[in-house]
Amino acid sequence: MITDITSPANPVFKSLKSLTEKKGRREHGLFLAEGLRVCTEALQTGHVPKYLIFSVDAEGHPLTQALIAATEAAHGMAIRSTRDLLHRLTGKDNPGAVAAAYAIPDTGLANIDRGTAPIWVVAENLKDPGNLGTMLRTCDAVGAGGVILLDQSCDPFSLEAVRASMGGLFTRKVAQTTGDEFFAWLRTGPGQLVGAALDGHTIDYRAHEFAAPTFLFMGNEQSGLPAEYAARCDALVKMPMKGTADSLNVAVATAVLLYEALNQFESLAHK
Amino acid sequence: MITDITSPANPVFKSLKSLTEKKGRREHGLFLAEGLRVCTEALQTGHVPKYLIFSVDAEGHPLTQALIAATEAAHGMAIRSTRDLLHRLTGKDNPGAVAAAYAIPDTGLANIDRGTAPIWVVAENLKDPGNLGTMLRTCDAVGAGGVILLDQSCDPFSLEAVRASMGGLFTRKVAQTTGDEFFAWLRTGPGQLVGAALDGHTIDYRAHEFAAPTFLFMGNEQSGLPAEYAARCDALVKMPMKGTADSLNVAVATAVLLYEALNQFESLAHK
Repeated sequence: MITDITSPANPVFKSLKSLTEKKGRREHGLFLAEGLRVCTEALQTGHVPKYLIFSVDAEGHPLTQALIAATEAAHGMAIRSTRDLLHRLTGKDNPGAVAAAYAIPDTGLANIDRGTAPIWVVAENLKDPGNLGTMLRTCDAVGAGGVILLDQSCDPFSLEAVRASMGGLFTRKVAQTTGDEFFAWLRTGPGQLVGAALDGHTIDYRAHEFAAPTFLFMGNEQSGLPAEYAARCDALVKMPMKGTADSLNVAVATAVLLYEALNQFESLAHK
Repeated sequence: MITDITSPANPVFKSLKSLTEKKGRREHGLFLAEGLRVCTEALQTGHVPKYLIFSVDAEGHPLTQALIAATEAAHGMAIRSTRDLLHRLTGKDNPGAVAAAYAIPDTGLANIDRGTAPIWVVAENLKDPGNLGTMLRTCDAVGAGGVILLDQSCDPFSLEAVRASMGGLFTRKVAQTTGDEFFAWLRTGPGQLVGAALDGHTIDYRAHEFAAPTFLFMGNEQSGLPAEYAARCDALVKMPMKGTADSLNVAVATAVLLYEALNQFESLAHK
């Protein structure tokens, strides 16, 4: 049964709207994603909405119909609404035809099975949700396992992170832990910890031999990797800097390193 | 002579604030940058503020003093103010100690001297100022000449673009033109036009032989390169996609391609 909601004062709508804030996400254990394409990709990887909200003009679309059917089959709530309410929900000027609330998954380290991917990203104190989302999007593109967030990193379930991930949040793993817990876990199994650094005993990133599973360790946007974390890496790599700036955007640096590692793994596979 | 401004109602402050909008930038021919480090790097590359605004607590800093001296020597206005006003100006919760307004440079294609760099970025209908700024930052890092913006691309002088460029806007060239004008200009001199594409007659980006000067052609965030533009490229390159997503963030893709080209140019230089 489809529920009609046309007023922003509706309590279900207000609960959904609260998911745009961390407090609301924690309270409900849900997060928002938006767009017919992303929600459809999420469904294809087994993520069924707890709440699906769609604009009335999109109801007839076969992909919307598939989302409605899946939501109802899993006893979620399918909500017929308006573009105006979708705009109010996501803040987007041109809101998608659908948005959906999903259960926040367990982000404990125990969910990371390191053998399932040749490379993982570890981010220390990452602050910008756009950077995190972009990193998840790149992880998807290169077949990296996902992102392990250390210390006071940003919330991977914010609308901004989910949006920038372009579906990567649904296909990649995300863990949230502390540096101490991560290092303890890392050394219980195989893994090459490769830090991206600007100084210290760094080598050119192309000269480093990446070995799977690699854990690519990226520091905070402003301050980079803390010295005590850099000291615990198996190698520190650096990209050539030709200009006056001394660093790259962290999501950009991550992508360049991920593609280098991927390229090395591929050429090994062909030998 | 230093001018004190402590009220947001001050007409000079209001003019500076208007530079956060495109209308104000067009009216005054000025744009804003923020932060002691970026403004100092700008000064080192010959960019002197027309207006310099600094918080009173930062006045004693030698870099602030250097900026004040340079501004006054060039008959600009140095303004002593407060963190609160800097926050109101830039919208940042933790505003920098200084912000400055600079003359918007001429962005005609005639200012692009293609021989001065081995590679340039051309962006078609680029919409996100954060992406543009990140591309300029990466251009600086790899020694690319800058970004040529085609058609309805975003404003390179918005605070968001300037901020993401981390000074790259001051060290790289930016041009704004149409596709037609760009193609006409391109073929008046040497230049390999390499489009980033997802389909069509693409080759793996590592298999392509980049030749300087390369013009790396990136499409719009949503729709990629239009077919008629792709058809005019000398080559179309693609990055391997292993996951469910079929594309990368445009600033990320640009960086991966720029580093590949840079690496090829470097290994040629060593042969």
